[in-house]
Amino acid sequence: MRLVTVGSVAFDAIETPFGKTNKIVGGAGTFISLSASFFMKNQGIISVVGDDFPTETLEFMKTRGINTAGIQIKEGEKTFFWSGKYHNDMNSRDTLITELNVLENFDPIVPEQFQNADYLMLGNLSPQVQRQVIERMASRPKLIAMDTMNFWMDIALTDLMQTISMVDVLIINDEEARQLSKEYSLMKASKVIRAMGPKILIIKKGEHGALLFHEDHVFFAPALPLEDVFDPTGAGDTFAGGFMGYIAATDDTSFENMKRAIIAGSALASFSVEKFGTERLTEISGEDMNERMQQFVTLTNFEMNQLA
Amino acid sequence: MRLVTVGSVAFDAIETPFGKTNKIVGGAGTFISLSASFFMKNQGIISVVGDDFPTETLEFMKTRGINTAGIQIKEGEKTFFWSGKYHNDMNSRDTLITELNVLENFDPIVPEQFQNADYLMLGNLSPQVQRQVIERMASRPKLIAMDTMNFWMDIALTDLMQTISMVDVLIINDEEARQLSKEYSLMKASKVIRAMGPKILIIKKGEHGALLFHEDHVFFAPALPLEDVFDPTGAGDTFAGGFMGYIAATDDTSFENMKRAIIAGSALASFSVEKFGTERLTEISGEDMNERMQQFVTLTNFEMNQLA
Repeated sequence: MRLVTVGSVAFDAIETPFGKTNKIVGGAGTFISLSASFFMKNQGIISVVGDDFPTETLEFMKTRGINTAGIQIKEGEKTFFWSGKYHNDMNSRDTLITELNVLENFDPIVPEQFQNADYLMLGNLSPQVQRQVIERMASRPKLIAMDTMNFWMDIALTDLMQTISMVDVLIINDEEARQLSKEYSLMKASKVIRAMGPKILIIKKGEHGALLFHEDHVFFAPALPLEDVFDPTGAGDTFAGGFMGYIAATDDTSFENMKRAIIAGSALASFSVEKFGTERLTEISGEDMNERMQQFVTLTNFEMNQLA
Repeated sequence: MRLVTVGSVAFDAIETPFGKTNKIVGGAGTFISLSASFFMKNQGIISVVGDDFPTETLEFMKTRGINTAGIQIKEGEKTFFWSGKYHNDMNSRDTLITELNVLENFDPIVPEQFQNADYLMLGNLSPQVQRQVIERMASRPKLIAMDTMNFWMDIALTDLMQTISMVDVLIINDEEARQLSKEYSLMKASKVIRAMGPKILIIKKGEHGALLFHEDHVFFAPALPLEDVFDPTGAGDTFAGGFMGYIAATDDTSFENMKRAIIAGSALASFSVEKFGTERLTEISGEDMNERMQQFVTLTNFEMNQLA
């Protein structure tokens, strides 16, 4: 198997200035694997849901080439549920409800056909669960990437540091990078964090794009300027899924290819925020993606003349 | 004459987490014309100072090819003085002192040899003074660019709108664009503002780079990620001066060339913030500039493969 993802498969209820939803399907694992499916078929997902989770969603995942053998379905239990309300600027949100449900005692099962995957993506989850997945692989993947959030820095820092030390790529946002490194300058933060283990650091800056750090190299990918951001939920997961899906599909971990992978992730994230939840990700075609990636080229490309 | 700038030539006293200065030379006009001088010699500045202003600074400007015939020196009066203190994140600051002094009744004189300039840069000043300079030119420049700030939106909006309607390029920051357009989305704001007159809009986003809008085209220039921002004072003026200096030197107002001009402005701004005031701008060489512009290429360039 080329890529394995561990991450929540869940229900979200979202309110934005543009409208609100009932319970819809969300979760980091869902966004990551759907996003990665634009680039490759041979992937699996590890997660847990309750018996209230729609089988149609699992069937849909399979049509996208996602092996769901790693999703445990807990009879008599309920799926993880998150509800949130975005502020008018869409840059901040309040969590209204968090019901951990099946996630509370999540003991990840790594099916045998997943255990020799080339690439492993650890979606935002308890660092202990993330580490268990690494330990339950039969062989060490070529590249392990990890997402996390400030919540785990607050309540499980020791655990988190241990997991971080085991991965190749850490993907976090600017505030999280500052909290983790205790440095305000992202250039300084990138050095402190890479000294914790990951050779490669990606700092997401939302509407301000993303930075990729490796050795002395820095690459900056802009976010596409959009007229409206309809729903930012899952944008970071979509970005991570596009990044790892692109890397896994091309089987190339060079810095040059990681640049392309970040643009791919940014392009998918720019679609994801156009509608609620995963809706937009289920609509777009390969042609849509090629067009949008071309927009990123146009947005940033310039030819510099040597000065006189 | 190729380029004329109107803008304050002033004293600043600056406090940052890295240190503090006594009164040093600052002002939008100073930063703009010093920055533009990296690309061209044939430029003039329009401003006003008191008899307390050091003649050495005016002499230094001349050595950089800046014609100071448009700087009025008011006997018995004092130069504009601003004092401010930056917060720890360097993204916000408190103004401690503003003494308008000679700026209070600034009646700009446009010397005859300035009156047929090809390019005109209106530094941040009262919109009435900016307009007077346009009106006192003998012929309409090929391109007029204008900087302004929220202060003028608050106290002189009608005047400001009139001046904005007369220029080709408006250069403001993201907060100002939102205030002026009453739109949060910068894509929407860019349309509202360009309907006010300027064909071209540049939105500065500080450490997050800058956006250039013209017709249906958008270009994004990143800011160089820096380990430390020592003093952001004048960074926006340095950016604007680099932009207009590059355009004036190349005498090319195509969109492709404006992209290069924005990178040139961003590169100079990235130097400017490395030391207090204009100090760094007086040190760097053409070679330093070429090197830094190359860093911008490396930071953003990628080759996109067509997806399978």
